[in-house]
Amino acid sequence: MAKVADRYLEVDPWSVVENGFSVERSRVSESIFSLSNEYMGVRGYFDEGYSGERLVGSYLNGVYTEAPIPQPNIYKGVANKTRFMVNTLDWLYTRISIDREQLDFAKCNIKDFMRKLDLKNGTVSREFVWTTSSGKSLKLTFIRFLSMVDSNLGCQRIVLEPVDFSGRVDVQSGLDFTPIHVSEKKNFWECPKKGRENGITAIIGKAEKSGHQVFSGFKLCSDSIADTRLVEEEKYIGLEFSIEVKQGTKASFDKMVVNYADKNSNTDTAKVWESGMNLAGKLTAMSFEDALSKHTAYWTDVWNNLDITIEGDPENQQGIRFCIFQLHQTYHGFDASNNVGAKGLTGEAYSGHTFWDTETYCLPFYIFNNPAAARKLLEYRYKTLPQALDWAKEQDCKGACYPMSTIDGTESCGVWWHGNLEIHVSGAISYGIWHYVKLTGDTEFLYSQGVEMLLQVSRFFASRGNWSPDGKFGFYGVMGPDEFHTFVNNNCYTNVLAKKMFEYTLEVVEEMKKTAPGKFEDVSGRISLDSKELDGWKSMAQSMIIPCDEKTGIYEQHDGYFMLPHLDIHSIPVEEFPLYHHWTLPRIYRYDMIKQPDVLLFMFFFSQDYSMVGKLKNYEYYEPRCIHESSLSPSVHSILAAELGKHDEAYNFFGFATRLDLDNYNRNTGEGLHTTSIAAAWMNIVYGFGGMRTDGGKLIFSPSIPEKWKSFSFRILYNNAVLSVTVDKDNAVFRTISGPSIEAVIFGRGYSIDSNGINIPLPADRKQ
Amino acid sequence: MAKVADRYLEVDPWSVVENGFSVERSRVSESIFSLSNEYMGVRGYFDEGYSGERLVGSYLNGVYTEAPIPQPNIYKGVANKTRFMVNTLDWLYTRISIDREQLDFAKCNIKDFMRKLDLKNGTVSREFVWTTSSGKSLKLTFIRFLSMVDSNLGCQRIVLEPVDFSGRVDVQSGLDFTPIHVSEKKNFWECPKKGRENGITAIIGKAEKSGHQVFSGFKLCSDSIADTRLVEEEKYIGLEFSIEVKQGTKASFDKMVVNYADKNSNTDTAKVWESGMNLAGKLTAMSFEDALSKHTAYWTDVWNNLDITIEGDPENQQGIRFCIFQLHQTYHGFDASNNVGAKGLTGEAYSGHTFWDTETYCLPFYIFNNPAAARKLLEYRYKTLPQALDWAKEQDCKGACYPMSTIDGTESCGVWWHGNLEIHVSGAISYGIWHYVKLTGDTEFLYSQGVEMLLQVSRFFASRGNWSPDGKFGFYGVMGPDEFHTFVNNNCYTNVLAKKMFEYTLEVVEEMKKTAPGKFEDVSGRISLDSKELDGWKSMAQSMIIPCDEKTGIYEQHDGYFMLPHLDIHSIPVEEFPLYHHWTLPRIYRYDMIKQPDVLLFMFFFSQDYSMVGKLKNYEYYEPRCIHESSLSPSVHSILAAELGKHDEAYNFFGFATRLDLDNYNRNTGEGLHTTSIAAAWMNIVYGFGGMRTDGGKLIFSPSIPEKWKSFSFRILYNNAVLSVTVDKDNAVFRTISGPSIEAVIFGRGYSIDSNGINIPLPADRKQ
Repeated sequence: MAKVADRYLEVDPWSVVENGFSVERSRVSESIFSLSNEYMGVRGYFDEGYSGERLVGSYLNGVYTEAPIPQPNIYKGVANKTRFMVNTLDWLYTRISIDREQLDFAKCNIKDFMRKLDLKNGTVSREFVWTTSSGKSLKLTFIRFLSMVDSNLGCQRIVLEPVDFSGRVDVQSGLDFTPIHVSEKKNFWECPKKGRENGITAIIGKAEKSGHQVFSGFKLCSDSIADTRLVEEEKYIGLEFSIEVKQGTKASFDKMVVNYADKNSNTDTAKVWESGMNLAGKLTAMSFEDALSKHTAYWTDVWNNLDITIEGDPENQQGIRFCIFQLHQTYHGFDASNNVGAKGLTGEAYSGHTFWDTETYCLPFYIFNNPAAARKLLEYRYKTLPQALDWAKEQDCKGACYPMSTIDGTESCGVWWHGNLEIHVSGAISYGIWHYVKLTGDTEFLYSQGVEMLLQVSRFFASRGNWSPDGKFGFYGVMGPDEFHTFVNNNCYTNVLAKKMFEYTLEVVEEMKKTAPGKFEDVSGRISLDSKELDGWKSMAQSMIIPCDEKTGIYEQHDGYFMLPHLDIHSIPVEEFPLYHHWTLPRIYRYDMIKQPDVLLFMFFFSQDYSMVGKLKNYEYYEPRCIHESSLSPSVHSILAAELGKHDEAYNFFGFATRLDLDNYNRNTGEGLHTTSIAAAWMNIVYGFGGMRTDGGKLIFSPSIPEKWKSFSFRILYNNAVLSVTVDKDNAVFRTISGPSIEAVIFGRGYSIDSNGINIPLPADRKQ
Repeated sequence: MAKVADRYLEVDPWSVVENGFSVERSRVSESIFSLSNEYMGVRGYFDEGYSGERLVGSYLNGVYTEAPIPQPNIYKGVANKTRFMVNTLDWLYTRISIDREQLDFAKCNIKDFMRKLDLKNGTVSREFVWTTSSGKSLKLTFIRFLSMVDSNLGCQRIVLEPVDFSGRVDVQSGLDFTPIHVSEKKNFWECPKKGRENGITAIIGKAEKSGHQVFSGFKLCSDSIADTRLVEEEKYIGLEFSIEVKQGTKASFDKMVVNYADKNSNTDTAKVWESGMNLAGKLTAMSFEDALSKHTAYWTDVWNNLDITIEGDPENQQGIRFCIFQLHQTYHGFDASNNVGAKGLTGEAYSGHTFWDTETYCLPFYIFNNPAAARKLLEYRYKTLPQALDWAKEQDCKGACYPMSTIDGTESCGVWWHGNLEIHVSGAISYGIWHYVKLTGDTEFLYSQGVEMLLQVSRFFASRGNWSPDGKFGFYGVMGPDEFHTFVNNNCYTNVLAKKMFEYTLEVVEEMKKTAPGKFEDVSGRISLDSKELDGWKSMAQSMIIPCDEKTGIYEQHDGYFMLPHLDIHSIPVEEFPLYHHWTLPRIYRYDMIKQPDVLLFMFFFSQDYSMVGKLKNYEYYEPRCIHESSLSPSVHSILAAELGKHDEAYNFFGFATRLDLDNYNRNTGEGLHTTSIAAAWMNIVYGFGGMRTDGGKLIFSPSIPEKWKSFSFRILYNNAVLSVTVDKDNAVFRTISGPSIEAVIFGRGYSIDSNGINIPLPADRKQ
């Protein structure tokens, strides 16, 4: 695979540091130094403007517009419009001039550049010295953060420190709705209201099509500013002012910004203005320091409780902390209308869309780090159940068909053979419910929301599936997670998932009938559930086709897969990757080459259902056929390899998991971070080297340690306890940091873990 | 199936007559009364204009423009632009006024309307009486034809006969380039030159994108016209004049029009003008009568030699003559740059594109009616071989991949999963060559052009196919003619065709090495043929996967077809047809329901390779699964049913073959005629009831007669002889009308047929 590190940033355990400015690397750094707080996100672009290539990306979660999907033909049930997260306003907008020379990295004389993402407190700072053509040198420091506590609040501090002069610096600071949405080459905003009230300068932008309104208002705090002048343009409002700086003295000003989105297309602009102003009045009353201290406290709590340490591997130490940081800042359960986009809030690519990655890759992280957020992610699916019901109907089906990619619950996948065929997505929603409820015991959620989704997904599967001529049940004309095979029958992953979820749904029904009959009556009445449907699902589950060669024990990825022409994937020249750009679709689709491993994925999800021998055979069969063109693929291989004692392979597949973006392995980090792949890195350590499995009755562990590492540790929240696991070359130590004791199975033996800890020697085959 | 006759036109053996004008039926009649002569075609629209709904369709064969194909995504090797036959000028343009009231069927008082297509002489005439609001009644007769002899020539005669007045009639007659291409809602023409020279009024239109230029010039001939005034507009040129009519006397004027297309985008307009004017000078020197008499002689010859008669079934008698007429007028081998579009030259639908229907459905008609035209159709493929070589390369393949749908040899199919997966199209080209050469013995064509196509198609198949893990050869990720199953592996039809064509190619190579080594050296040098390739093709043919259940002898349409869920096609409500409009694609694709019969098709093409028992079993298996959503499908069933002695079924499937358009069965004749389906009607009689098979060493016949028919007869050109076959309830009579005697196998016994004729009693099982 054509993936090699592009090591550029400083390796440091608690920060990401860029020394010196690189024009070529600028877009990548914008992504790396992105900040977000679930409510909003902003790329690490330069506050003061930059006439070089950049992506002024600033997003509010769930704020979208829409565009038609070009289609060569009109077919029934094919999505014809896509809704996508639209680039909003540049609220960091600043312009700085001295002697009429405007600060611009593309044109000015800059030295001593340093940019830093501080993982401990979630700030991005940047400092450099600017020497003007008039010969004046000014040191500037920019600091920004998006409050993890007050999620409407973004803070910017700019410090000016003249090195060799005293004099005037001219500044503009404003709110700018003119940035374009780059992929659509268009600005989607009109600004129906702007103005200054009670010291707050504010503007409202209204998005095309959706009618979503974004209020943004700011207050400047500084001892150095005397007079300000209000400047208004069509899509801009700001203040102009001057600062008299003195050599050897720092002058600074803080911009406290409140962004507030109203996603109801009918709200009166005056009402949005009022709500925005109220919020702004409250939040900008805080000082920068106070806001930062609340924000820092949030991060301190995160790191105290849920850090991962790796001794002996500083690159991965930094990498995994960067991942953990991204996951927390992208989503922490602030609002069930939000979800995790494939690139978080760090770029336009993938349109801010949520995929099934949320339930399969991200949810485990949240279950074990922020269970309330995990629930919120599932509540998002409940909130969008009406759209899933509609989408199923459009597919000539019943129940709920969850979208392949979406920002608001409507199918927005532009490529119909993905959007319409990847029915496993709905199974992933049920799987997420199963996994969450199993690990949290949250029957309140299950009985009030989860069960309804389970029933509607089962209904969908029942209507989408068919009985084969020999009386078995399966799914025809589908695509599995492995998107290198389209229009297949009986994708093994899809069928296993549907069978398991039929069974789980029926289990929940039985349980509810006994323990919560009223609630069951409620839901079954609401959705007009017929007991015949339940009988049907039972026999579908029992008769489900699970393609498998009984002689070898190898699962067949789909009907006929074993008879596909074989391709030696190592024969593909490096320059032909990514294949989608270099090969025609029929060429990609006609071999046994897979993009990501469907069979290994379900053997990981339902690990207890399969023997080690079975996993080994399937791993050894599928691994050489997998091209990993999905960034989610290597981690699954690493996790399985670790379980199977293939320690070298496990470490190799872990390779770029934590540093996919830091080292720009895929050469596309400039478009935004691979946020859902970041979740896979966490899983790779906890489920891979930690050997955790969560599909049994109790937590299961079977840790191992890569040769390079001296030790590693991770912590998880489980059953109101914080469990710490530390593994070194000799021992694995399990201890609760807080909360009740935890029952777990370690290397096949049951233990009760409490704050005293248990020290278990690593078996010889679990280390290298 | 939701197909019922819409019987509207008069049933007559030699004409199609419409009595009375129907607004609702107007678009359908425009199609039915279309005329063409291969070089050009014109719909039966009203010469004098009509403010109601109409499609002023006037086409020149192969004159196209292009438009981008909307795609949701850019994939390698997917066609991104489509070239389509563009609507050209209205050269019949006429406007007629009396007392400032303009003749318009939508507004005027019209009675005694009659429109007639005369099949004997290929004219369309129309007469009616117009009573003006000023109370004057004028009888008008319009006659038009497109010369089958001088293919640039179109003739229009308009006869005015005042019933109750004498006075002035104002007329405009011109050439109008303003009609829009309706499906694109756009006019694609600019007119770089127009004017009047030597009594010829002319204009040139230049098409967008292609730069094709169309010259049109006309001369008016009349004793009744005194002065004319030239009128020029941006895209129009014409003459205005008045005719003084006298009660009881006919006045008339003839418009002799020459259309001439230059399809070289670089030709100077002045040069086109000169060529056009030269042609116009020559052809318009002819009188209307002379031109008509040459034209009529052409048709007389056609009907004398190649008529089909059906006694006892006037509807089908009329229907089959309509079909024969359409095939001759659409294409008769005038120019190898032309081909047969799915709708001929009668409408915009299917974009004037040629499909594989040409080689599989139309070619047999031409082989047995106009072998020189058959050769020209294959020469068209040779002329477009360079485009097929390019298209293969774009598909990451070698050799020649012929396009799914095209006007100029480039792939213009807007739906990539058809365009890129239906590789059987290339096999159909080779099949056409095989069939043509087998029946005509034209080795001159084979050795100079055919063999090169055969070799390049074999090369394509070799590169597109793959070896399966068990050492067999097949085609993966394809679509067969049955478009209800996409992305299948080893489509049986495709594999059979490829195997046969590999074998035929190798046979031709062996034969050429012996009998024409120089020519073989030529071609193999030109295309750098390697003898290893030939060895490869041999082993591919030998190892070709032909999916078949050996126990039952039923061929499996593709890998896994037998295990698809069964759908009772009779359970589909009538109002859900056509399925493409009412069902989602994954719903259409996931059953054993087929659109048209792949297996039966190859059992028909290569009839001698299969036993009657084999055909019977496969017919009985596939027939109930076929929904006939292709208009080419029923005829294949009818032909097989006739062979198998299922006479009722044979007649039922023949049902709407000859009258598909006359009775508007598909409710879309308004878009144009189903020209390639019309060819299937001819095959249905000759191969079906005539029981002819042409894949053996000699012609084979096994006639049968439908219960309703008293007798039927058909004639074919074969080996320079005209063979007449007449079948009644008791006997089948075979006789040559001209030329040498013909060897044939009739009911399994060999005969030599000459002008004395052979009378063979029909076996009991060949009649009802």
